[in-house]
Amino acid sequence: MKKAIEQLTEEQLIEVKRQMNIYNQGVQEIIPTEELELKVAKSVLEKRPLKIKLGLDPSAPDVHLGHTVVLKKIKQFQDNGHIIQLLIGDFTGKIGDPTGKSVARKQLTDDEVKYNAKTYFEQFGKIVDMEKVELHYNSKWLAKLNFEDVIQLAGKITVARLMERDDFEERIALGKPISLHEFFYPLMQGYDSVVLESDIELGGTDQHFNILMGRHFQEKFGKEKQIAMLMPLLEGLDGVEKMSKSKKNYIGIDESPQEMYGKAMSIPDELMNKYLELITDLTPEQIDFLKEDLELGKLHPRDAKMLLAKTIVRMYHGLEDAEKAEQHFISVFQKGTVPDEIPVIEWQGANEMPVINLLVELKLLSSKSEARRMIKNNGVKLNGNRVEDTDLQVAISDGLIVQVGKRKFVKIKK
Amino acid sequence: MKKAIEQLTEEQLIEVKRQMNIYNQGVQEIIPTEELELKVAKSVLEKRPLKIKLGLDPSAPDVHLGHTVVLKKIKQFQDNGHIIQLLIGDFTGKIGDPTGKSVARKQLTDDEVKYNAKTYFEQFGKIVDMEKVELHYNSKWLAKLNFEDVIQLAGKITVARLMERDDFEERIALGKPISLHEFFYPLMQGYDSVVLESDIELGGTDQHFNILMGRHFQEKFGKEKQIAMLMPLLEGLDGVEKMSKSKKNYIGIDESPQEMYGKAMSIPDELMNKYLELITDLTPEQIDFLKEDLELGKLHPRDAKMLLAKTIVRMYHGLEDAEKAEQHFISVFQKGTVPDEIPVIEWQGANEMPVINLLVELKLLSSKSEARRMIKNNGVKLNGNRVEDTDLQVAISDGLIVQVGKRKFVKIKK
Repeated sequence: MKKAIEQLTEEQLIEVKRQMNIYNQGVQEIIPTEELELKVAKSVLEKRPLKIKLGLDPSAPDVHLGHTVVLKKIKQFQDNGHIIQLLIGDFTGKIGDPTGKSVARKQLTDDEVKYNAKTYFEQFGKIVDMEKVELHYNSKWLAKLNFEDVIQLAGKITVARLMERDDFEERIALGKPISLHEFFYPLMQGYDSVVLESDIELGGTDQHFNILMGRHFQEKFGKEKQIAMLMPLLEGLDGVEKMSKSKKNYIGIDESPQEMYGKAMSIPDELMNKYLELITDLTPEQIDFLKEDLELGKLHPRDAKMLLAKTIVRMYHGLEDAEKAEQHFISVFQKGTVPDEIPVIEWQGANEMPVINLLVELKLLSSKSEARRMIKNNGVKLNGNRVEDTDLQVAISDGLIVQVGKRKFVKIKK
Repeated sequence: MKKAIEQLTEEQLIEVKRQMNIYNQGVQEIIPTEELELKVAKSVLEKRPLKIKLGLDPSAPDVHLGHTVVLKKIKQFQDNGHIIQLLIGDFTGKIGDPTGKSVARKQLTDDEVKYNAKTYFEQFGKIVDMEKVELHYNSKWLAKLNFEDVIQLAGKITVARLMERDDFEERIALGKPISLHEFFYPLMQGYDSVVLESDIELGGTDQHFNILMGRHFQEKFGKEKQIAMLMPLLEGLDGVEKMSKSKKNYIGIDESPQEMYGKAMSIPDELMNKYLELITDLTPEQIDFLKEDLELGKLHPRDAKMLLAKTIVRMYHGLEDAEKAEQHFISVFQKGTVPDEIPVIEWQGANEMPVINLLVELKLLSSKSEARRMIKNNGVKLNGNRVEDTDLQVAISDGLIVQVGKRKFVKIKK
């Protein structure tokens, strides 16, 4: 492959450098780095697009900003004429967890898989050009494997290699059981790359082991090895855990402009640069400019975050909605007033009741203990007045405004 | 199940005890011991035969005395009306070793598997009633499993449990790789018991782990668990290693009476009792009687061994051949004379040649270096005279008798 670079014209070489410059943006790790340039060079020389694989779990199709880190990278490849292979791991999804221990991995039906895939694509369409994307379902080849094929596949990897995976290693150290079938998930992901003949596989850094399985099995099957391109994981609104639906620390790309703006304003300050770099469409130059102004004190951190929030809303809802969301935020949260539009609830219950019961009845909180905690944390207001007594008895009148936290409002209609 | 024993009549209880007495003979371990009696009791009460499984490797179908330890036990079950399930592990045999590392586990064709199975059965017929035996080939169900089935199966066992197998544990300790497919051999053996609904699985003590897999998977599939009945391993003629074809320390049950007798006479003295107990058809009483006479000095150890040798030959060739073999042994080895019948070779080669070349030409030894070694060890005679010079030039005359070791003779005919 080395020869590809040597054969390039001056113009082609510049093109390779141009693409490499883009692909390197915001990446955490490329394994092995030197091979990516060779692949790109070969692609330019032979005018052959590269195949970029992205695997998707069909069980949780709500796309949030965490996903967009990888989607942005995909868009870059797509803009340069490469082929995107979206792989729906439906085989895994249809199997479920044979031990029955994991609730998360319950068995999906064909219809659920199809519905979830469709959900993904509708959302992906906001970032990448879905018409230029290849869709693959791994059940197409995995479901056809018989026991003999599986044994041939298993013969190409050692137990020791599989146990190197971080979470396996950890569970072994803690004496927690690993069910043998779990060893097959990395095998499947690796075998998918063999079938798809992928040149590059994209994923978060938590996919390090699984993506390298692709290289391993491609080599064992005598194919050219893919490059692992690992993107940083985006911490969620809590500033600690990886953004994910199950942690409830996410901003979904299908959320309303107001919700999105409000959530974006709660991004921890120390993560602001990372968000700007990884999930906005601002250029590296624009971001550097913002950072500089922040450092010099020319820009207030709150204003920078408002700019980030507005940018995010603009990307998914357009400029007009972004500006409205900003106005809404300013009026409610900065001026401390109640928003114009509050959900109205037709009240048919008792005329008075304890405040914690009311909060649960209105579905503002899910349990009495949660309601009690929220009151203790000064998070509940009635008609703008903070509730301080968890045993408060409330007279429920027409027009009563109940507020929980900063953004949840309900108006009673009797 | 406990109730089965309580429901037995006096007569049935005696029958259970009678059978248990037989089954316990010569066994190394029964896991768990208490369950076997319950199974037998249930069988007697319900007049339902037990299913006794024995797995066979189709790649090495030469039956030797080592195998007969288990076959004798099978015969006992058969004599008491139980069903023998002979399982040919043809699926494993047909797969071969996917890593291509093991020469021993080369892929067998359908015809080879069938031929080898037939070879087994012809030999087994000398010990058990093959007409009353159920034959099973595990490819019948294993070949039908698809990837999803395999994952469901793999979900029923943990990695830690599989790594407990002695040889795996040892290889992990030594840092030797275990290929993932190797984990499937115990799984297959276990799943075979699920399909066959075996009550008891027989095997050598080296099958401890694999046979317990049957219990494990039967339980996971909601079936009654089989009993593991482990027979002692018979050391071969070297007195150290387990008798096996590859170690060349075996007595095959298809060998000629003379060969069998001669090999039996080389059984180490300290193993004589074990051979008497495990592989002859002598009753426990007869064996005790022999042991007593030996201890009291009434019986010379050499005579005891001749009795053992004669018994073995009688079992596989009948009394007449056994007596002939004994006479042959006495005349050749005890009196040191040349036997009556020596294979004659029509000589059409040179009139003289170096002795080491002659030994290889006559196929008495397989290489010149081996021939040279045998001469140095005083193991080669020409017409009864020891050859002392490895460079000896031999004149090859009609009637020349060439002898290698104690039992290999050839007569030249020109």
